[in-house]
Amino acid sequence: MMIDWTIAPITAIASILVAIYLYFYVNRQSSGTAKMQEIADAIQEGAKAFLKVEFKYLAVFVVVVAAVLAIFLDPIMAVAYVFGSVCSALAGFLGMTVALKANVKSAHAAKQGLNKAFPIAFRGGAVMGLAVVGLALLGLSVVYALTNDPNMVLGFSFGASAMALFAKIGGGIYTKTADVGADLVGKVEMDIPEDDPRNPGVIADNVGDNVGDVAGMGADLFDSYVASVVAVMILGVALSKLAPYASISYGDVPLVFAGLGIVVSILGVAIVRVGKNGNPGSALNMGTYLTCIMFAALTYAVTYYMEINIGVWASAVIGLVGGVVIGITTDYFTSIDKAPVIKTAEASQTGAAVNIITGFSYGLLSMFPALLGIAFASIGSYTVAEHFIGAEGAGVYGIGMAAVGMLSIVGMIVAGDAFGPIADNAGGIAEQAGFEEEVLDITAKLDAAGNTSKAITKGFAIGAAGLTVIALLATFKEIAQAETGQIISFNLMDPLVLTGALIGIAIPAVFSAMVMLSVGKNAFIMIEEIRRQFREIPGLKEGKEGVKPDYASCVDIATKGALKELIPPSVLSIGITLAVGFIGGIQALGGYLAGSIFSGLIFALLMSNAGGLWDNAKKYIEAGALGGKGSETHKAAVVGDTVGDPFKDTAGPSLNTLITVMSLVASVFAPTIVMYALL
Amino acid sequence: MMIDWTIAPITAIASILVAIYLYFYVNRQSSGTAKMQEIADAIQEGAKAFLKVEFKYLAVFVVVVAAVLAIFLDPIMAVAYVFGSVCSALAGFLGMTVALKANVKSAHAAKQGLNKAFPIAFRGGAVMGLAVVGLALLGLSVVYALTNDPNMVLGFSFGASAMALFAKIGGGIYTKTADVGADLVGKVEMDIPEDDPRNPGVIADNVGDNVGDVAGMGADLFDSYVASVVAVMILGVALSKLAPYASISYGDVPLVFAGLGIVVSILGVAIVRVGKNGNPGSALNMGTYLTCIMFAALTYAVTYYMEINIGVWASAVIGLVGGVVIGITTDYFTSIDKAPVIKTAEASQTGAAVNIITGFSYGLLSMFPALLGIAFASIGSYTVAEHFIGAEGAGVYGIGMAAVGMLSIVGMIVAGDAFGPIADNAGGIAEQAGFEEEVLDITAKLDAAGNTSKAITKGFAIGAAGLTVIALLATFKEIAQAETGQIISFNLMDPLVLTGALIGIAIPAVFSAMVMLSVGKNAFIMIEEIRRQFREIPGLKEGKEGVKPDYASCVDIATKGALKELIPPSVLSIGITLAVGFIGGIQALGGYLAGSIFSGLIFALLMSNAGGLWDNAKKYIEAGALGGKGSETHKAAVVGDTVGDPFKDTAGPSLNTLITVMSLVASVFAPTIVMYALL
Repeated sequence: MMIDWTIAPITAIASILVAIYLYFYVNRQSSGTAKMQEIADAIQEGAKAFLKVEFKYLAVFVVVVAAVLAIFLDPIMAVAYVFGSVCSALAGFLGMTVALKANVKSAHAAKQGLNKAFPIAFRGGAVMGLAVVGLALLGLSVVYALTNDPNMVLGFSFGASAMALFAKIGGGIYTKTADVGADLVGKVEMDIPEDDPRNPGVIADNVGDNVGDVAGMGADLFDSYVASVVAVMILGVALSKLAPYASISYGDVPLVFAGLGIVVSILGVAIVRVGKNGNPGSALNMGTYLTCIMFAALTYAVTYYMEINIGVWASAVIGLVGGVVIGITTDYFTSIDKAPVIKTAEASQTGAAVNIITGFSYGLLSMFPALLGIAFASIGSYTVAEHFIGAEGAGVYGIGMAAVGMLSIVGMIVAGDAFGPIADNAGGIAEQAGFEEEVLDITAKLDAAGNTSKAITKGFAIGAAGLTVIALLATFKEIAQAETGQIISFNLMDPLVLTGALIGIAIPAVFSAMVMLSVGKNAFIMIEEIRRQFREIPGLKEGKEGVKPDYASCVDIATKGALKELIPPSVLSIGITLAVGFIGGIQALGGYLAGSIFSGLIFALLMSNAGGLWDNAKKYIEAGALGGKGSETHKAAVVGDTVGDPFKDTAGPSLNTLITVMSLVASVFAPTIVMYALL
Repeated sequence: MMIDWTIAPITAIASILVAIYLYFYVNRQSSGTAKMQEIADAIQEGAKAFLKVEFKYLAVFVVVVAAVLAIFLDPIMAVAYVFGSVCSALAGFLGMTVALKANVKSAHAAKQGLNKAFPIAFRGGAVMGLAVVGLALLGLSVVYALTNDPNMVLGFSFGASAMALFAKIGGGIYTKTADVGADLVGKVEMDIPEDDPRNPGVIADNVGDNVGDVAGMGADLFDSYVASVVAVMILGVALSKLAPYASISYGDVPLVFAGLGIVVSILGVAIVRVGKNGNPGSALNMGTYLTCIMFAALTYAVTYYMEINIGVWASAVIGLVGGVVIGITTDYFTSIDKAPVIKTAEASQTGAAVNIITGFSYGLLSMFPALLGIAFASIGSYTVAEHFIGAEGAGVYGIGMAAVGMLSIVGMIVAGDAFGPIADNAGGIAEQAGFEEEVLDITAKLDAAGNTSKAITKGFAIGAAGLTVIALLATFKEIAQAETGQIISFNLMDPLVLTGALIGIAIPAVFSAMVMLSVGKNAFIMIEEIRRQFREIPGLKEGKEGVKPDYASCVDIATKGALKELIPPSVLSIGITLAVGFIGGIQALGGYLAGSIFSGLIFALLMSNAGGLWDNAKKYIEAGALGGKGSETHKAAVVGDTVGDPFKDTAGPSLNTLITVMSLVASVFAPTIVMYALL
């Protein structure tokens, strides 16, 4: 039997079926008491209200962009674009829907023990993971099957990425507006615990976990995943013209590898289990490692059997190993029991300022291993691919395959990652429902496991985005070369490339600033509202029976603020990309993309890692060290944590998506730019 | 009469003579009461103690590097290197010596009014400014005259830059260790005013202003100045072989322009005056603008008269204009009466965290105009030079001339910049000596003027460093081409270039982290010591007659800490540069340098601007807004200011020098790397 690219849609459908099965598994579980159900309903209501308004906004944007694409480029491209947006939004929506059920059910199951609560939370995450890869691969396969043109798949990818960018920005602003507001007034000023039902911002905060972390993150990996596959498809088509191949063209190989990745991801999800007193964090990580090993073995077998060039396999495996290495080193900088976190916690003894300086510095240091990892993964995959395939363009194809390798197990990665906010929410619901201490201990353990797995999966996400955008830069060059018929190189001593690069490095910074200022602005309004409620609602602070805060007004502030602030940074980043292209031409745009990749990686790594580190430094103190909760040291650490919130949950993770969108815009418009550029 | 390159040493000597004249002017002024003299003596003692130990450390380093250069490259290069180190150190030493006199004399003169105090502080700064350009240009002229080989001048430049790097790191760590320590315990914990003599850290703090701001900054501009001239000399030698010229070779033009820059700088220094109720800030800026106009006019006349290609002049003027534009836009982001500072101050109402997020975001935004300025200055100068000269290599020569244009008026720039810390110190001495309110008002006005001029001069420094390192990258390529006889290009799709770039972008981040962690570590020790003294010395806090803190122990902590922490980041940055070169070869090193330039500019702009902004947000509140001094809002703003301290005074300004040193190391070792590189 021959394997061809249709393995991709077949496994994608399998993935969606397993997701549906797991959805019903989660749905079968009990939601607990009426009070729990009431809390969960409030969160669900808030989240759905947000998504409804968000999708309404985005529909307008999608239609406008689709019209532009249809008029200036190609109507089929426009349809592919819309299809990509819809698939991406759907994956986010499904993931969030199940997360909003799994949280309360997992909280209820926590009463019967860790080994009951864990599978609900994890399988809730797995629904998201498998839905993401299933919809992504099915969607792009459909476009490919109908058009037989990878360039049209680029339109699908653009749609998915633009949607992901909105989801990340909107969700990121929402979640941190609510979080900062609820924490600063609740924890710092009023001295009431996290997730306390007296806090008017608590529901908005819980909603934020879902619209920000779950929906946003799912859309994020959806977009990298699609982008890496389509980039390699396009590079592969060019390569297939030059290099001999046995049974399958280089353009179709990424689809096969992605399909095999789904197979191992399903197996990985099935494997993960935890005993009554087990450690859910290591169970999750063990699942990830096993999935990697299975992927390497399975793809080797297929490569051997189908006589695919071994350089392709080697590149994919280098990518996978790179992802793990980046994850592990990132983990060092954000782990609660390692030097960076402990030293930052200790620095809090001299106040908030020294906490910030120390955490920020470790965030800067944390870039080094990750960038080295990306650098070695790219030169390694380039070298093996060039060596074994030996044709022009084989090297960058290898880099692309490294990205595909890293992202192949994305189903498993997202499962582990979506587990985090579900567990976090479960803890919140347990707290608000007034569960006893032992149950809260269990939900806290789940929450901690979520943070452990998050570090490694975040490393994967950033590493993969780095390799993907490098492959996309090569794709952009490839398309421009095909259009012009000339060899193009992005030489740094070319003034257009250099100027483009100097502008490009500014964009991720400007973008981050815009979204963080939005958080600051909205948090300000949120804080005023929460303070007002504590001031004006009698008996609220004291927790008098029957007195309830006005949760809805806080939800409303977060929703409106996030949606208002979502459009400017998105439009700006797409607009400047087109302006650079149409004014400066291909050279300037190439430099610009490279600059934005460099700066995007820098800030993504800095912000994600520093944010995680501050968070854990605070938790380290809360666990009783250095004076514990309520001490001056703790207050200083809370400042660091609050600064880190928009770093790690708003700006940082949006940057991956930003540079992917910019690269895709460039590639989609490359043929038009070649024709109409000013310089 | 023909003008040739010997105008450079002639004007350099004139500059030194004027500096000596101004030195005696400052020295003639009264130092005031015995109490003031005592305070000034303590600062002088501390500063000299630091420099003495620092120079001892550095002598070892200089000897080691000189030995390496002599053995592996060229003994003459080694001598030039030592000479460059000595000249740079001498300029810093002289500038600091006069600053340490001008501070107390200016404070004393403040009793007689602003128009008496201002000229002393400004001329004190001018001694530094003119000594810097005089020694720099004289030194490199001597090397050029003796060897007639611009490559040997590269050795001089390397010496100057390595020394500048040490001065910036060591001084930067010192000043912020003292500042953070003194402020956090004094202002925040003990609630005593800035510069209060009861604070054990006050002398160390004042010493820090001198060793950090004065000596460090002088060495910094010394190094960019020399590097830009030598880069253009080398690019000019290559260009002269291809392009026809009238009366002077392209390699000698930068020396002529630098010489003319000295002439206008001397005139500029003479022009600056302020009336009894004048505004010293605008007087300083007006002086800078007039100097720019004079430079443009004078160089145009010389260009016309000597029939130098007009493209050269146009490039230099584009650079100059770029410098002013970068300065003015930077000023917007850090000015006390503009939106970014005011909004950051307002954000402090919701606590320290939101202050940090807001200030950091504006810091990110502030990059955009500066990077656009550098981008347009480079593409503009490239284009005019290529258009008018019309030979291979003319474009990058133009970029270099833009850097020379920006830096030509460095004498005036440094004068305005060194004025700042002198005025700051004068205020400190006036405060400690217990002057009446009106006099303190005058010194406060001087201090504020220092901050105004600082913004514009900082813009110049960063812009010039940006263009200089681009020119140095071209120089590196030029040298490598000459060695290999091949055309070299740094193509971003070349895996070695890309890998180099990914490593290069990490270095400025790692470097910043190392120096900031040093500040955090030392500040911790300093804080403990200051707290101990307040605890253990009876009557200190109450200000009992005759009770004095142990200033010397604080000075000692700052000195030892700074010197211990100085070597690792310096050695690391030079070491990795050589490692990348000798392992990856010319291509990897080119990508690496480009990456470090991008990331160095990003962090230099971010840190300098965010730091200045936080400082002024605090001052805005201290001036009475939003609750004024002592309010919760003020406390939040103090946290931001403290975070900004190592940003703007330790890490940020060292980055210019870092990337210059890295580029120079690459150029100096390029011939050896060509021969022995592994790949």
